[in-house]
Amino acid sequence: MATAQQSKSDHVVAMITSPLEQEHVDRILAANPGELELIYRPDLLTPARYVADHTGAPDWKRTPAQAEEWYALLRRANVLWDFAYGETQSPLELSPGLRWVQTTSAGVGQYVKRLGLQDSDVIVTTSSGVHARPLSEFVFAALLFHNKKIAHLQAEQKAHRWARYCATELHGQTIAIVGPGRIGRETARLAHAFGMTVWAMASDNSPERAEALGVDRLFGRDGLKEMLRGADCVVLCCPHTPETEGLIGPEEVAAFKPGVVLVNISRGVVIDEDAMIAALQADQIGLAALDVFRTEPLPADSPLWDHSNVLVNPHSASTANTENAKITDIFIHNLGHFLAGDLGKMSPVLDKARLY
Amino acid sequence: MATAQQSKSDHVVAMITSPLEQEHVDRILAANPGELELIYRPDLLTPARYVADHTGAPDWKRTPAQAEEWYALLRRANVLWDFAYGETQSPLELSPGLRWVQTTSAGVGQYVKRLGLQDSDVIVTTSSGVHARPLSEFVFAALLFHNKKIAHLQAEQKAHRWARYCATELHGQTIAIVGPGRIGRETARLAHAFGMTVWAMASDNSPERAEALGVDRLFGRDGLKEMLRGADCVVLCCPHTPETEGLIGPEEVAAFKPGVVLVNISRGVVIDEDAMIAALQADQIGLAALDVFRTEPLPADSPLWDHSNVLVNPHSASTANTENAKITDIFIHNLGHFLAGDLGKMSPVLDKARLY
Repeated sequence: MATAQQSKSDHVVAMITSPLEQEHVDRILAANPGELELIYRPDLLTPARYVADHTGAPDWKRTPAQAEEWYALLRRANVLWDFAYGETQSPLELSPGLRWVQTTSAGVGQYVKRLGLQDSDVIVTTSSGVHARPLSEFVFAALLFHNKKIAHLQAEQKAHRWARYCATELHGQTIAIVGPGRIGRETARLAHAFGMTVWAMASDNSPERAEALGVDRLFGRDGLKEMLRGADCVVLCCPHTPETEGLIGPEEVAAFKPGVVLVNISRGVVIDEDAMIAALQADQIGLAALDVFRTEPLPADSPLWDHSNVLVNPHSASTANTENAKITDIFIHNLGHFLAGDLGKMSPVLDKARLY
Repeated sequence: MATAQQSKSDHVVAMITSPLEQEHVDRILAANPGELELIYRPDLLTPARYVADHTGAPDWKRTPAQAEEWYALLRRANVLWDFAYGETQSPLELSPGLRWVQTTSAGVGQYVKRLGLQDSDVIVTTSSGVHARPLSEFVFAALLFHNKKIAHLQAEQKAHRWARYCATELHGQTIAIVGPGRIGRETARLAHAFGMTVWAMASDNSPERAEALGVDRLFGRDGLKEMLRGADCVVLCCPHTPETEGLIGPEEVAAFKPGVVLVNISRGVVIDEDAMIAALQADQIGLAALDVFRTEPLPADSPLWDHSNVLVNPHSASTANTENAKITDIFIHNLGHFLAGDLGKMSPVLDKARLY
């Protein structure tokens, strides 16, 4: 891997632009080798509605005086902790000296493109990896919720009815993972622990790659439908790229095994939502656990809200109480290399050409 | 291990006394080396209400003619697939030539004692091990249901409300396992896969035993309260013996970490149910996922039915669609050794002195 060298930075101004707890700011300051000016003004940040909220309340607004101060500070920033959410101007205009953005999300490729940073020199490091554990925990929450028939138990309990029943076992089932990145590999690891057969789809489906990914069988793009036909559970966790948009179209949805558990923790546009809704209405899907949707927030009139075989997660499956601590670890790691001019050691860096 | 040798059995009559699918009976017949007479009369058996139902509908009754035939067949049996459920007479009276019972449950110690078989020569092989996987899958269904706040998601979905939220991670949490038998060890293995710290309690808590069990720390009986104080999740999966009855008394319940997830897949009398209910009412328990109760079926007036932090399972957490296939494997294995007179190779055999 090439290592970009650059002159050591003398005075760098970093700015926290999304809610972050004081304890993590303190850790950044403690790790800071003294060459950094850190702007942390919680009074100018949208208040967090929950731990690891990065966007804040949508109706919150700065006063005119606060906004003036906010934009003046942004103008000085060379480094951002997170993109300033809700701004319509380009980050390059808001912060002319911008050189690096550490995001609090992993799937920022399309967003970076929309912001016009794709061809800029701004380094974008993501929090890829941080969400692999909580997301794969959500995958198994969904799989076990369905297989142990928890919704049935809840209904029985409500009726004070004691009737023995038979659940199904994950053990021995086949899981198909679309997008074997960090999240997919973590999901594969847990699936093996549960005694499942693990299949995945990747553009390179050589035996070497299958072994590196730790899956039992790796399908290419042309094997997608075959894979879906044989899988008891399907997990969508690929990045949103031009290649994956609409990847699961009507034909792929038709290939789902009847009663499949579908978990989408990728992006809503990866699957044809209308085809998925039609399959749900035809009772072809056992459970669709959805963290992402074509339109977010999910519109009030979407039939997905009321379908008994759907579990709606408001794009929070990746959010965990431990998240900001882990992103802070990444930021501190990258900050050291950035200040030392060792840009090649920063990680994980967004590939702005491939958008992930 | 001592191997009991006995003369080869010439004519053995085995009888299926609880519902079993034809496919499994066919496998037994196919494996039978010809020395066995297998009585399988589904018309005389209580109908299964679900796959792997072993007790059948409580209000089902044989006609007088059926009952006469049933008891005549039982009198001839030397081997039983399951205890004849609901009979009040001793199996030794119903089947005077009884030599071996293969049960479809693991926790049959107290039942065997009640039936008066504790001091008899009748071999009791159990289905210990068959339930380890489904039970530990239920444990993680409960842990993930709580940590991913699925009940919250369900309420939000019902209200068509899109509000991001923060879940907690199993990763990094500490699980305490009371009773590290097969189920406990399987639970420990999965807990490690999720990145949890695994504690357990066993009468022998030597370092060698801790290593053999694959747990990070093993407490003795005198360390129980200390273990409970430090655990985010507590799983009760010990057998019901005189030593474990009331093991989790009011003092132990008081030692639970506030917000603990408690999973009881042992027996109801292992925990003081009144103390547990009081702790639930004081909001000290985050979730109690209960498969077993002091009285089963759970009485209609139990406050456990309506508590929002309780998940009631009607003693079916061990029941899986794969169960009878696995018990059939055990039975076929044991049948070969029984017919060959290699009684010492039968497994798993109930220790009638220790009752598990």
